Amino acid sequence: MSTAAGSGERQARAALSRLMEPSDWVGLALVAAVGPVDALRIATGSLAPGPSLQTDVQDLLGRAAEDGGARTLAEALERWVPRARELAPGRDLATIARFGGTLLVPGDELWPEALADLQLGSPLCLWVRGRLDAGIPPAQRVVAVVGSRDSTGYGNAVTGDLAAGLVQRGCCIVSGGAYGIDAQAHRSAMAAAGDAPVPATMAVMACGLDRYYPAGNEELLRAVAERGLLISEVPPGSAPTRWRFLQRNRLIAALAGTTIVVEARWRSGALNTAHHAAGLGRPVGAVPGSVYSANSAGTHRLLRDGSAVCVTDAAEAAELAGPFEAATAESGGWQAPLADHDGLGVEELLLLDALPVRQGAAAGKLAVVAGLPEQRVLAGLGRLELAGLAVRDGSGWRRNRRQ
Amino acid sequence: MSTAAGSGERQARAALSRLMEPSDWVGLALVAAVGPVDALRIATGSLAPGPSLQTDVQDLLGRAAEDGGARTLAEALERWVPRARELAPGRDLATIARFGGTLLVPGDELWPEALADLQLGSPLCLWVRGRLDAGIPPAQRVVAVVGSRDSTGYGNAVTGDLAAGLVQRGCCIVSGGAYGIDAQAHRSAMAAAGDAPVPATMAVMACGLDRYYPAGNEELLRAVAERGLLISEVPPGSAPTRWRFLQRNRLIAALAGTTIVVEARWRSGALNTAHHAAGLGRPVGAVPGSVYSANSAGTHRLLRDGSAVCVTDAAEAAELAGPFEAATAESGGWQAPLADHDGLGVEELLLLDALPVRQGAAAGKLAVVAGLPEQRVLAGLGRLELAGLAVRDGSGWRRNRRQ
Repeated sequence: MSTAAGSGERQARAALSRLMEPSDWVGLALVAAVGPVDALRIATGSLAPGPSLQTDVQDLLGRAAEDGGARTLAEALERWVPRARELAPGRDLATIARFGGTLLVPGDELWPEALADLQLGSPLCLWVRGRLDAGIPPAQRVVAVVGSRDSTGYGNAVTGDLAAGLVQRGCCIVSGGAYGIDAQAHRSAMAAAGDAPVPATMAVMACGLDRYYPAGNEELLRAVAERGLLISEVPPGSAPTRWRFLQRNRLIAALAGTTIVVEARWRSGALNTAHHAAGLGRPVGAVPGSVYSANSAGTHRLLRDGSAVCVTDAAEAAELAGPFEAATAESGGWQAPLADHDGLGVEELLLLDALPVRQGAAAGKLAVVAGLPEQRVLAGLGRLELAGLAVRDGSGWRRNRRQ
Repeated sequence: MSTAAGSGERQARAALSRLMEPSDWVGLALVAAVGPVDALRIATGSLAPGPSLQTDVQDLLGRAAEDGGARTLAEALERWVPRARELAPGRDLATIARFGGTLLVPGDELWPEALADLQLGSPLCLWVRGRLDAGIPPAQRVVAVVGSRDSTGYGNAVTGDLAAGLVQRGCCIVSGGAYGIDAQAHRSAMAAAGDAPVPATMAVMACGLDRYYPAGNEELLRAVAERGLLISEVPPGSAPTRWRFLQRNRLIAALAGTTIVVEARWRSGALNTAHHAAGLGRPVGAVPGSVYSANSAGTHRLLRDGSAVCVTDAAEAAELAGPFEAATAESGGWQAPLADHDGLGVEELLLLDALPVRQGAAAGKLAVVAGLPEQRVLAGLGRLELAGLAVRDGSGWRRNRRQ
């Protein structure tokens, strides 16, 4: 991986990401003022701040849009003291490497350009696991699909259709790895991508990438780490806190060229992501639903106040995301997944994804893997067989490899 | 009724409304140029057009926004010949009187001021049946609730809630008397209004008011004629044609300060009404629904292209309609219905409406009248009894008259 950052800067950013909470404005201003290496030395007390540093930091904060109040360097230095003793960036880097992951820092070739829109609020670094060889897809190809944790069947169905349809159009789906809409978005994106060699989905986590949160999504998140990308700005070992969740939402919004809210209650984290996206000048879509569904109250709110465009299917979401053909032509390394599965419904895609490659499996087993009723599995297998995507042999059903 | 128009002018407009189709631009320009009495004489060949008349008509047409092409007075005079022989305004006026109705012409005290926004497209006259003593409610109090003829259960439920909630806030609901959303809007408005002495609903018809169209809505339309208003710009005996339906939509849009589309397919007459309303600069609302419902494709289209605001309940519809308290204070003759029924659901309102005043009725019979399952009727009767609105006696349930 080509990189502009030296090993010292990389280590320093790794350490700073443990020392400072996401969006620690004084800390970010300090790094902006003196660079990560000296910032770490000052923050940990091994280098005295110069006489004009407080002024420089204040100047930078004054320019940051989200600066809330008067936060001084002196206060921040006190705040950082307890954690300064526990920094072990070498250990954290070894941990992420053990998970097959890496650390990205600004200046790296793979550093997502789109984060620059966060200005001073851009993360110190990104801890990443997964299929990074093809890079993080550029924002114009990334669509955030977010929504309620307690999603309805309707919300799940729409999410599945949107995510699958967008992946078939060459998009990567980013979400938060949570229950409900997030999980459905990741799952359907992977199902639609099949064996495409590029990440069809990314999960931006609020915790360190050595753990899976929420625990019930462990299997899903393991699959995302294997076939897509897991991303976090906090180092391994970090717990998911409320603050980190809220800050995580800005990363989802910044990595995605477009954000679609499928379901959201009147107050919902998904609305927070939508507002971040709107603040970055990125288009926001909201899926309408029943006026009697509390899970659509938030999306209707977005539609009503004009902060989102009404989106009812993948084509409209893609329209919001802009001209994809143009993006395809421009993008060098990142290739659209094969469109083998165009025209398949979500159930067929889930089923296709569940089909083993070598040894055939019985319909009953496929029903469990795909999470579909057995009757639907049988009907779906028939359609996949007709489409030349599934074959039956003595041991059961398996995937038909295209010549 | 005080009026500025003399008997001759009234007769002339009655005749012209039979001679000319709605929005006959040349005809309307002719009336604007020479007044209705001479226009009728010219149109029927008993008065020769003056030398400059064609120029005057063309000038007027040039100013009309909806002028399509070069339509000359000469062509129009030929077009009117066949009908000129069949004019019998005295007979038509006698017919409407026999139905307890009347003819309104521009200049009449009760002529709706809001029609002036149609400019040259304003109707020649309005044939009206029903409770006209309190006048036609001013547009700021009138909300059009329109939608698909083949409405879904969802659409009917939302329509019921909207219409009832708006009537409880002092609105009058205008619609087109068709099956589906229109019928539900009229029905729920009347149910919510109870015995209020003002029209809670108006149906603008595409046919003469001596008939009920569609036939399946005869009972409903009779009720509207008795408790609300039936309005048409075509005289008794006129059939409902496709052209008249389309032109009728502009009257709905013009009589209503606000138009709400509850359900509409991708191509739908309700969208036509919405576009008329938008063209008049009146606010338009659209109700969201399932992205899988063909009956919401049209409303989502309105939301998506920005021609409608997302409306999910009566409060939001009322917000769109503007400040009602102010309207109440301003309006002299038109009083808000009693708010006896505030807080009642649609089912209770339908049930209340079904309750006989004198002789009690059994729950089974009320179920038929109200169109509700008997179980719901029993539960609803309990709630109405608690609210002091229903009483039970030896013969069954009846309405409890407030002291």
